[in-house]
Amino acid sequence: MLTIAIDAAGGDFAPAAVLLGASACLSRIIQLKQKSDVSFQFFGNPEIIQPFLDNDPLLKKYSKIVEAYLDIQPSMSLSDVVRKGPHTTLGKAILAVVNKTADAVVSSGSTGPFMALSKIYMKTYNGIDRPAIPVVLPTLKGKCLMLDMGANIDCTSKMLCQFARMGNIYAKAVLKIENPRIGILNIGSEETKGKSYLHEAAKVLFDDSTINYIGFVEGTDIFTGSVDVIVTDGFTGNVTLKTAEGTAQFINGLLKQALSNSFLGKLGYLLARNSLKKVYKTIDKKMYNGAPFLGLKGIAVKSHGASDAIAFSYALDAAIEMVRSQIPSLIEEQLLLEA
Amino acid sequence: MLTIAIDAAGGDFAPAAVLLGASACLSRIIQLKQKSDVSFQFFGNPEIIQPFLDNDPLLKKYSKIVEAYLDIQPSMSLSDVVRKGPHTTLGKAILAVVNKTADAVVSSGSTGPFMALSKIYMKTYNGIDRPAIPVVLPTLKGKCLMLDMGANIDCTSKMLCQFARMGNIYAKAVLKIENPRIGILNIGSEETKGKSYLHEAAKVLFDDSTINYIGFVEGTDIFTGSVDVIVTDGFTGNVTLKTAEGTAQFINGLLKQALSNSFLGKLGYLLARNSLKKVYKTIDKKMYNGAPFLGLKGIAVKSHGASDAIAFSYALDAAIEMVRSQIPSLIEEQLLLEA
Repeated sequence: MLTIAIDAAGGDFAPAAVLLGASACLSRIIQLKQKSDVSFQFFGNPEIIQPFLDNDPLLKKYSKIVEAYLDIQPSMSLSDVVRKGPHTTLGKAILAVVNKTADAVVSSGSTGPFMALSKIYMKTYNGIDRPAIPVVLPTLKGKCLMLDMGANIDCTSKMLCQFARMGNIYAKAVLKIENPRIGILNIGSEETKGKSYLHEAAKVLFDDSTINYIGFVEGTDIFTGSVDVIVTDGFTGNVTLKTAEGTAQFINGLLKQALSNSFLGKLGYLLARNSLKKVYKTIDKKMYNGAPFLGLKGIAVKSHGASDAIAFSYALDAAIEMVRSQIPSLIEEQLLLEA
Repeated sequence: MLTIAIDAAGGDFAPAAVLLGASACLSRIIQLKQKSDVSFQFFGNPEIIQPFLDNDPLLKKYSKIVEAYLDIQPSMSLSDVVRKGPHTTLGKAILAVVNKTADAVVSSGSTGPFMALSKIYMKTYNGIDRPAIPVVLPTLKGKCLMLDMGANIDCTSKMLCQFARMGNIYAKAVLKIENPRIGILNIGSEETKGKSYLHEAAKVLFDDSTINYIGFVEGTDIFTGSVDVIVTDGFTGNVTLKTAEGTAQFINGLLKQALSNSFLGKLGYLLARNSLKKVYKTIDKKMYNGAPFLGLKGIAVKSHGASDAIAFSYALDAAIEMVRSQIPSLIEEQLLLEA
């Protein structure tokens, strides 16, 4: 049995989205396997969580509540978070992984506190300065991985090289890509363009025989399927991801306006509805929710703060996949090989 | 008569795209006004340019060729470009504006040389450290302006404040927005998120009563119409723009795949074709070609290197609009007011 520790108080729609999300995740597992090989530990106030479980006998069967009464508030400073950490719903859930009573922790709480407590309790592997957040994105030919998506605002060339190596392992294990093509995000593919620390990282990756480095890539390359792992700093990664989200919403909005403005547009929409649904499904960000902090000696998966139940259920899927593919130990092995 | 100096050798498809683009621009003017109040000066090899003009009597009527035989090659270093500048097609075209024989210069040549020579020959206004490249983007409610799009890879908070002020003037004059809402692109709307130089710039803009500063904005806000001027450094701006382009191409690709995969999809596409065309037109990047270097004491408009004739004709439109709205003198006036 595989156990997921869940911060029941994290996120804008906790605890409802969290509990309903776990229920949706469990239903999918049971549909596939009849019996679940996954169980949940909810960290939070039992008085709030218990009624939900009483209403959902199946979820109740595979769940346990661990008492924790202190929620992390947005107003808390990081030093506050660190001091009070062991008493918080999030801190206790992370410690469950450290103490091996759970295999992974999932939270929709803020990135800062989640990242800080995970790093302190779980620690990073030797050779990794800071964990990175990857995201899996759809492309015209399949999927690609991009990291860091916001854990590290300022990066060094050394950190980018570490991200590239971790991304390489993750893309092999989770996306099942044999020899991932790795690129660094820049403002041009020419060697002389962009920032100098990108040039330094490019030089190191170019000389690294364990990695299939293909050079600089641009924003226009992200979705074409011409690169498998896109390496960038957390600031650029975060802006890029949100810009892609915004563009997709924008085109969605334009399509809706255009197709509802004329009779032929409406008729065309009705006929093409199923085809359009496939498109929306591909670009639905909920599908890509659940990003691990790569580089930690344990599995911590960040779910989007505004996650609803469906989005949270995908974050749980991501955590389960991480446990099954044993990503942290793969990263450790690779780091030992290269040391 | 308003005169545009054109670098006939700049860009991937020069001189054909350049000459055909001028022809397209001229046709639009004549359609509106019967007689053109715009003329063109082509800087390049007359032996190449003359045959084009001989084939296009209307364009010939409004055009002049200025001899220049040295093209700027991608292999040339920036110091090379600066040394040979006055003999190049680009350099001569820029100098025509400085010497007041033309009102604006347009080139599809590389940003680096164009920016360098423009800055040396035209100079920036007092109070502007470096010119910035803005881009006009479509939104669900109209248009917005974003800058810098790649002229300045590394920026200071002071530069961002200058960009905000120039963007404010440009949005008023060109986009006809009365009191433009100005935001700084960041990874979260909370004051504490992101890079510290963004916080410094935010503080200055917040205290600036001449500007309607609304705070940090995110990638998801670009296309919603909730902000009119988005301020960012040239690296992030360039990556953001290319990501939006890539996302639009991606969704286009998905739609095409989806709509051609089934009979109903195809039929729906046929019926909704006109509506879909409106969407494509809105997101067609050709429409947004032509970005001035804001902050120079003259008008220099950069056209995309891969511009075809249609795209180049829009860059000419942008230059003509810049001349008509007298953006540089508006920027100068505002700077003098604030000095």
